[in-house]
Formats: sequence, C-alpha cells, structure tokens
Amino acid sequence: MKWSKTHLHTLREAPSDAEITSHQLFIRGGYIKKLAPGIYTYGVMALRSIRKLEKIIREELDNIECSEVLMPMVQPAEIWKETHRWSEMGDGLLKFKNRNDHEFCLGATHEEAITDYIRHDLKSYKNLPMIIYQIQTKFRDEIRPRFGLMRGREFIMKDAYSFDIDKEAALQSYDKMHAAYVNIFNRLGLDFRVVKADSGSIGGDTSEEFHVLAESGEDQLMVSTESDFAANLEVCPAIDPVEASYGGGEALPLEEFPTPGLKTIASLSESVKIDQKNLVKTMFFSLSEGLEDDKSKPIAVLLRGDDEVNPIKIKNHLGLSNPPLLLTETEVQTLTGALPGSCGPVGLDIPVYSDNGLKNYKNFTVGANKNDVHLKNVNAGRDFQVTEYADLRFAKSGDKSPDSKGVLKAIRGIEVGHIFYLGTKYSKAMKAQVLDQNGKAKTIEMGCYGLGVSRTIQAAVEQKNDSDGIIWSKALAPFHVHICNLDPKDSSVNSVVESITSDLEKKNIEVFIDDRKERPGVKFKDADLLGFPVRLTIGGKGVKEGTVDVVNRSTGNKKQVEINNVSIEVEEILNSL
Amino acid sequence: MKWSKTHLHTLREAPSDAEITSHQLFIRGGYIKKLAPGIYTYGVMALRSIRKLEKIIREELDNIECSEVLMPMVQPAEIWKETHRWSEMGDGLLKFKNRNDHEFCLGATHEEAITDYIRHDLKSYKNLPMIIYQIQTKFRDEIRPRFGLMRGREFIMKDAYSFDIDKEAALQSYDKMHAAYVNIFNRLGLDFRVVKADSGSIGGDTSEEFHVLAESGEDQLMVSTESDFAANLEVCPAIDPVEASYGGGEALPLEEFPTPGLKTIASLSESVKIDQKNLVKTMFFSLSEGLEDDKSKPIAVLLRGDDEVNPIKIKNHLGLSNPPLLLTETEVQTLTGALPGSCGPVGLDIPVYSDNGLKNYKNFTVGANKNDVHLKNVNAGRDFQVTEYADLRFAKSGDKSPDSKGVLKAIRGIEVGHIFYLGTKYSKAMKAQVLDQNGKAKTIEMGCYGLGVSRTIQAAVEQKNDSDGIIWSKALAPFHVHICNLDPKDSSVNSVVESITSDLEKKNIEVFIDDRKERPGVKFKDADLLGFPVRLTIGGKGVKEGTVDVVNRSTGNKKQVEINNVSIEVEEILNSL
Repeated sequence: MKWSKTHLHTLREAPSDAEITSHQLFIRGGYIKKLAPGIYTYGVMALRSIRKLEKIIREELDNIECSEVLMPMVQPAEIWKETHRWSEMGDGLLKFKNRNDHEFCLGATHEEAITDYIRHDLKSYKNLPMIIYQIQTKFRDEIRPRFGLMRGREFIMKDAYSFDIDKEAALQSYDKMHAAYVNIFNRLGLDFRVVKADSGSIGGDTSEEFHVLAESGEDQLMVSTESDFAANLEVCPAIDPVEASYGGGEALPLEEFPTPGLKTIASLSESVKIDQKNLVKTMFFSLSEGLEDDKSKPIAVLLRGDDEVNPIKIKNHLGLSNPPLLLTETEVQTLTGALPGSCGPVGLDIPVYSDNGLKNYKNFTVGANKNDVHLKNVNAGRDFQVTEYADLRFAKSGDKSPDSKGVLKAIRGIEVGHIFYLGTKYSKAMKAQVLDQNGKAKTIEMGCYGLGVSRTIQAAVEQKNDSDGIIWSKALAPFHVHICNLDPKDSSVNSVVESITSDLEKKNIEVFIDDRKERPGVKFKDADLLGFPVRLTIGGKGVKEGTVDVVNRSTGNKKQVEINNVSIEVEEILNSL
Repeated sequence: MKWSKTHLHTLREAPSDAEITSHQLFIRGGYIKKLAPGIYTYGVMALRSIRKLEKIIREELDNIECSEVLMPMVQPAEIWKETHRWSEMGDGLLKFKNRNDHEFCLGATHEEAITDYIRHDLKSYKNLPMIIYQIQTKFRDEIRPRFGLMRGREFIMKDAYSFDIDKEAALQSYDKMHAAYVNIFNRLGLDFRVVKADSGSIGGDTSEEFHVLAESGEDQLMVSTESDFAANLEVCPAIDPVEASYGGGEALPLEEFPTPGLKTIASLSESVKIDQKNLVKTMFFSLSEGLEDDKSKPIAVLLRGDDEVNPIKIKNHLGLSNPPLLLTETEVQTLTGALPGSCGPVGLDIPVYSDNGLKNYKNFTVGANKNDVHLKNVNAGRDFQVTEYADLRFAKSGDKSPDSKGVLKAIRGIEVGHIFYLGTKYSKAMKAQVLDQNGKAKTIEMGCYGLGVSRTIQAAVEQKNDSDGIIWSKALAPFHVHICNLDPKDSSVNSVVESITSDLEKKNIEVFIDDRKERPGVKFKDADLLGFPVRLTIGGKGVKEGTVDVVNRSTGNKKQVEINNVSIEVEEILNSL
C-alpha cells in the first residue's frame, strides 16, 4: 500500500482531551478520529490492526469448535424485561422507541439476545455443549467517555456464550474458553495477566479477567512475586505475611481519654504514640437490600488503622448484589452520637464485622462514640461482640500470596477480557431448557466470555510506545514494514523499492510505502509515530552504494544492509519479535 | 466443519410471515432467525456467505486503491442538521437522545459522517482523488419491514464515497467504481443487470442500479431485446416504436356529448367505439414545492388512454425534489367543476403538460369538466394550450429501446447496488473544500456507492433455488461440499469421510459434514435445503464397494464415483459452475 493512494493524515499535536499516551498516539497517527464523545471512526490503519486481532480470535475459537453468528445491535425491550435487566442495567443501556412506538435498546451485551436465539433450537442434552460467539459493534452510554477507545461509547467486542447440561460441563466449557483466551493473548505478543475477578452484577460466581499490563492501566492488580497468581485488587485475598497481634496479656480496664481535634488515624497515632497499624478504625455501611426504600440496616466494620476497607469483599461476604454504601456523616452521628473519627463499636446495637487482621488484638484503642473522646483497653468479647471475623480489607504489597508462593506486589493493568461462569441466571429467567438423558427438562447452564477488540488494540499501544510513537507487536501491526522512499521521483530508487516490496510480499510480509513528496525528517517522524516493526530507508545515495537502512522500531537499532540481503534482514527482525 | 459441533437447526416449515421463497428458505435452513420485525440474527451459514461476499468486495475495491475505514453507527444530530437531512430523512432515520440529552441517530447512510471525517484532512487537490469505503451494519426504521433481509431494518451494507477536484474527475471515479461493481457481481455467479436509475432525494444527476434478476424482484426493469440497455421502469424513456397519430385532417367543430356513468377509459372506449390508445386522459397533480404549506399549484397532464403517467418523470422534468401528488377527488372537483372521469384540459387556467405520444393527435375526445359529459373534436392549440410536450409516461414492452437497438421488454430485479454521482450537495453544506492548483478554495465533488451485503446474499437465493431448497453459486456458498455421512458409527465410513475431506481441503475446497444420528432421508432433505454445490453420500454399502455418490445440487445429476476419484470429480463440478 502506498501512502499517496491511502487516506492517512497524521497530526503534530494531540487534542487536549486525549489524556493518555495511547489515545494521543492514536489520534496523532490518524488511527482514530472522534465523531462525538466516545464515538470514533477507525481509520485505515486501526482497522487493519482490528482485523488482525479478529482473525486471531476466530482461529482460536474455531479451533475449539465455537460457532460464529452475528446478532442484532438493535434489540427489543421484551427480552430485557424477561431478565429484569431493562431496569437493572440503568442508564448505560441506551433505550429508545422506534417510529411504531416499540421500545428498543442498543446492544451493550447479548446475554438476552443469545438466550432467545438458542432457546427454541436447543432441545436435548445431545445439542450440548455449544459455544456461540460473535464479533460486533456494541454501544454503552458511558456518562463520561474518555481515553479514546478505552472507555468509549461505541466499541467492537467479541462476545461468546456457552451452553451446557450441568455445572460440571459448564466449568469445562469455561476452562476451554480460558485456554483459548490464553492462546489469543499469547499470540498478540503482549504482556498480560489472568486475574481472579469479581463477577459484578452479571451473575455467577466464577470469573477471571485478562489484563494487558500498562503503567497507566485503570485497574490495580496484585500478583505474586514467585508464582503466576494474580487477582484484581477488588477481590484479592489479604493475608498477613506474619500473623499480627497487639496488646497481648490480660484485658485491662476500659478507659476514656480526651482526643480533641484528633479525627484521623494519623493524628491520633502521632498523639498517642501508637503505630497506625495498632489502632483500630471503625467504618459504618448501610445494607439496604431487601428493605423498604427509606430504611437501611447499618453495620460496623473494624480494621487496623493502616488498612483500607474493601466494600466488594463486604458485598461478596454477605452475598449482596452491590457493594454497600458508607453511611454519611449525619447518619453516623444519628447512629453513634458522634461524628466519624470519634466512633467505635462499644455500646452499639448493630452487627460488627471485624477484619481477620484483628483476631489477636487486645487492649486496643477505638472512638468512644462521643465527639473528641476515645477509649483505650478495648477488648472484643468483653466490651462488644464481633458478629464475624472475615477478610474485609484490600490486599497490599508485601501480603502473603494466597497460593503461599511469595508475596504480593501491585501492578496496573487494562482489562481487555472477562470470562464468567454464569449459572442459570439468564436461562432460568428466559426458560431456556433442554431434556436431559432421563427426558426431564433442565435449565441450561451458561457462561459468557467477553473480549474488547477495539480496547485491546489501544491497550497494546498503551503498553508499548516511546516518546516518538507507537511500537506495534508483530501480530497487531497494521503493516510489518514501513518503507521511507526518500526519492520518489528517482526511478532507480523506485525500482529498488518495488523489488524489495515484491520480495517481502512473497514472504507474506506486509509493506507500507511512504511515497509522499515530503522531507526525510517528516517521513522518519511519521514512521516512528505509526510504529510498524521495521523501517526501511531507501534513497538515491544508498541505492547508488547498493544499500538500504534497516531500522528495528522496537530497539532503535539501525543497520546498513545490502539491497539483496534486505528481505532476509527484515525476516530476522520480525522473527525476533 | 461437522454438523454435530455446530449450531445449526433446520425447520420443516417456514413461518407464515415469510412471504417470498428466499425468506422461507433462509428461515428453514437456519440461515437467519428473527429477533424483532426486520431484525435478524445471522446464523453460522449465513455469516459464511456474507464473509465471502465481503472478501470479494474488499478485493475489488482494494484493487482500485480504495481506503477502508469503519465509521460509527451512532451519529450526532449536528452533522445531519448541517445538510438538513435531520428533518428531510423523515421517520426512516431513527433518532434518540442519550443519557446526557444529546440528540443522535442510527446511521442509515454515511454521507454526513464521511464528509465530516475528510473535511479536516483533505486540504489540497494533491490529496485527491480519494475513495473511502466501509462495510457496516446500518439501520433504517422501515415502517413495514418484510421479505427477511430484503427489506429489513438492520442490514449490512458496503458504502463508498469518492472525493474529487471537479466533475470530470468525479465521473472518472464513478466509472472506476462502476467497473469494480461489474467485477464484483461477475464474480458472484449471479445474473444481474446495470440499469439507469433515478437519483431520488440523495442529490446529483447520474446514477445506476445493480439488480440481481429474479421473478419476484420488487423492481420492474426495462431491457432491450438486442443490446445491454437497461433502465429502471421509473426512469426508462418511453419511445413509440412507430410514431403515433390520430384524427388527422382538419380540426372539426368542438362538440359536447353525454357520457352518463362512463367514468373509466375502458367504459368510454367501449361506448364510443374508439380504441383506448386513441382516447386522451387528463390527470391532475399538485406542485407544492416552494409554496406556503396550505397552497398548491395544480397542473394537468395529458396522455393516451392506454398509457400510465409516471410521476417520477414529472418530477425530473420539472426539477422537483419529490414526485408530485395526484389531486384528490374533491380537489379535482373544486378545480374543474367535475369529478375525475369527466375532466379535460379545455377551459382550465392551469399549465397543461402533454405526453410526447399526443403530438400528432387531432380531433380527440376528453372530459368536458361537467359530470357525465365529454367533448369530441378537441384540438390542442385551438381549444387549449399545451405548456410543453414531454416524455411523461411509463415505458412498456414493445417500446423502442432508447439506444435504438431492438425493443424493450420487462423483467424484474432486486436492487442490490446503487451508485451515484452526487456533485457538491454534501460537501457544500458541510464546507468540505480543498485548494486547487491555483491555490483557490474549491468545494469537493463527491460520489456515493452502496452495495447491500445482506440483501445480495438473499437475492442470490431468490434467483437460484428449486422446490427442495437453495442452489448456491460457488462464490457465495457457505461450503462447497456437503458430505452426508450415512453411518457415523462405522469407522470404515468415517475414515473414508476423513480422507476425502482432507483431500478436498488441500485443494481449498470447503467441506461440511453431516455426522448427526439421523436417517438418510432427513440428511438428504437438509442437504438440498442448505444448497451447497456438491453433495457426497458416503455410507457403509458404498464404502464396501469402494464408491461414493456425488450429486451436483444445481443439475441434480448423481454419479457413483470411486473413492480415489471423488476429489477430481468434485473439482470438475465446481469448475463447471
């Protein structure tokens, strides 16, 4: 492909709303262009990367005998009402009425559509297992779209759905998909991690995320220093490297003491000369599920002063649908008689959940439920009752890895895939059943498997770039080779360009030729910005000497190579990637 | 691919809302499944056909150096307001507000989106010519979707847009696209015609449609018996094979005569013993463009009693945006004093347009503008003035071909492509300009080029089928070969199936294997229904004798072939298609 014949326009500056590197590089390189917030046109080069990713996805899914279909993007309200997600999905689901006044939405996900698709077809356990997928444009009405394709409104996604006779079989399908995902991401040439994740509101209890690692990633991950254990911080078990204890020995008499103005753990610690980790903080949450709208049931959560409470762990521990909300200052005051900072568990008639880290804490200090007063020598059991000890804090670097191999360290990632064992949430609501081997109707067990296609492309750029531009992996690069033809009017240069291109294309190496009338500097800058793995510089001077410059985009290494050896040199660089 | 591992379910009966053969076969063969009216999921097999068509389209467009991009399906109102199509498109454009109360629509077409895309990039005549295309799902809110993918709401389309410095260059781009379309349709193995067409409201004055011929086609086409002239009936010039004349000689005295109850040309003809073609009928239309809403300017149109008036020709002749509407009975009575059936041009103070066919008519009969009375010996010029003679009737079989080669005959087609030279309608409204060679700003000349991807697939089925099912062309068939494995439990049969499959796949022949536990009759019926070009029947009896049945789906020819010769036989059949 020749630049002069292609619609491709680069920019020197990224617009001010491009906050992260990959977004800036995508705009500057002409990869994407905004039509509206979170809504982009994919240019020639971005589409080539996307098609390459799609091809890899198809190959790996076809390998495990998945069936590809294409479902509608516009979906009738009826199916969403069957699962109650018409209301539960909130405003992210874009709803509208058509000219005949029928309610529709834009597909943000396709659990309902696929369950409707199969429920009349699948009749017997003999039709199972079955995994169906599609690659499609979806729409989610993000309230604040940002980061380009990372959190856009319109995006391309591969979504797959598995159907099985029972949970055991469903988990086998899950494992098959897990393996296919690992193959896909391995082929992309990206650093990625599979992490344990929270299922959120989609249903089911087993789920894993696939993250492309990048410093600017939105998600914080905890990984083991010594094994492949990885979990999203949201759900990573928190285990002390050495069991913690404090204030051992006999329980001492409870004692109030004044703490005027000491509203934070830090200021209290400084004043009383006790390490933050040896103080105990009390947080209050409201459990409103299943209760009338204006009522809420408060709970207290205790944890060490230097730990952070993890509301998702509370949610999962108590089996809630959503993480509970913190009580407001006013609610805390009404409940305890004091403002946050002076509260504690003593004397309250509500459930008290304590983090595991406090199991061996005695004679500790908490707020007295009077403003500017704390209690010391507090002891669980004597001064208040612990409803239950549980893992309620965020894990942190240095914690023991849950697989007992090494310790945890924090890294950041971009979530590009998420796989779920769903159970029967959708199939039950939509009556998708088959007859089992005994001729008895059974609700189908499902799994769902998402992979953000447009997101992955940008995540790849976020992971690999430098100050000059993108550094594509071989698998996702729009082209393998970028030829800077420095003298497009010189016929001897053009014939070298043509013969090298022809040699490379015979080896299935894709070549892009910058044949514009531009200065060499402009061409080099654009080549670095676009970021294809190998750059060839072909100009009149080199051609006279019989040489071409070969540049490895990733290492920056530049080599003068004899014209006849160029295709071998290029192959070697590509094979090394 | 094995049937047992694929999501594919056929039906014995088509649902009652499937009115045409291709729709019925697509539903019965599991190719598509309805989610909502006009909104379908494409199954495994339909998607394979679609991908094949997409690949052919890409190859032909890439050959002429078009650039592929992917534009958004959700588009902001702003760009549609720039061209005034936000209101002009009517209810077919599905509009909605998002959670932030911004107005959007679903892309029914992308002239606005592409013009926005290029207007900041294209700066100089040096960036031209440029043709950009996409293959994408679009949405048109059809008031009455029907015929499956033929007139659906959600559909897949290839749309391309050309950008040039002047009209001459734009028509060169048009010709390039025309040639690419001819290549595409030639490769599909379908009978098709390129026909002159009306540009409708999209703008411009040059347009051609590509039609797949089929008896049940929605469009009536007129083609020459002796050349490749073809036009949509809507715009086909009407030329009498021999110049017509009537009532020659001197103008006779005008005379009223009673015609009680004779309201139709047929009854009048019978009563007065004059051939229908020698009577003159008068139609009244209202021209309301450019006038205030409640006003309309009426015109009369005269034509021979056996001709039909063509409102699109009136529109084009008078340069209107839309075909004019017929006056209602009441409006006719108010205007003429009589009901339709007794009206004529004499004594009316409105413009009178006469069809060319009446140029040599004298002493003819028309309504007298009194109920149940007609006038005879009417002569244009003496009794009323003709504003203008023009071609205002529909062409009919037997008319002279406009290229003077042979006569016209009527055939039916399904419109699957439409190409337009647009001029500057969109670029002017959206200020898409470049600097020309003299450094002067020039509005870009555009063309647009649609090809209905999902529609073409179904049109192919509508053209080629029989009472048993679909007959796919080689180019669009989901698979080339359908193997009916009659004894999937017999390992000797399975090994023959595997070795033949492997031989065929080495030749890039795609094989689908029916390995279900079903009776042979069921398998044969399904094979005919699905309609892949070659069927192989492999069973225990044949394998013992060393033979396989090879059936050509198109001819129905069946041949017993030695196992070793099967792949050669299959190749021969495929090459013959």
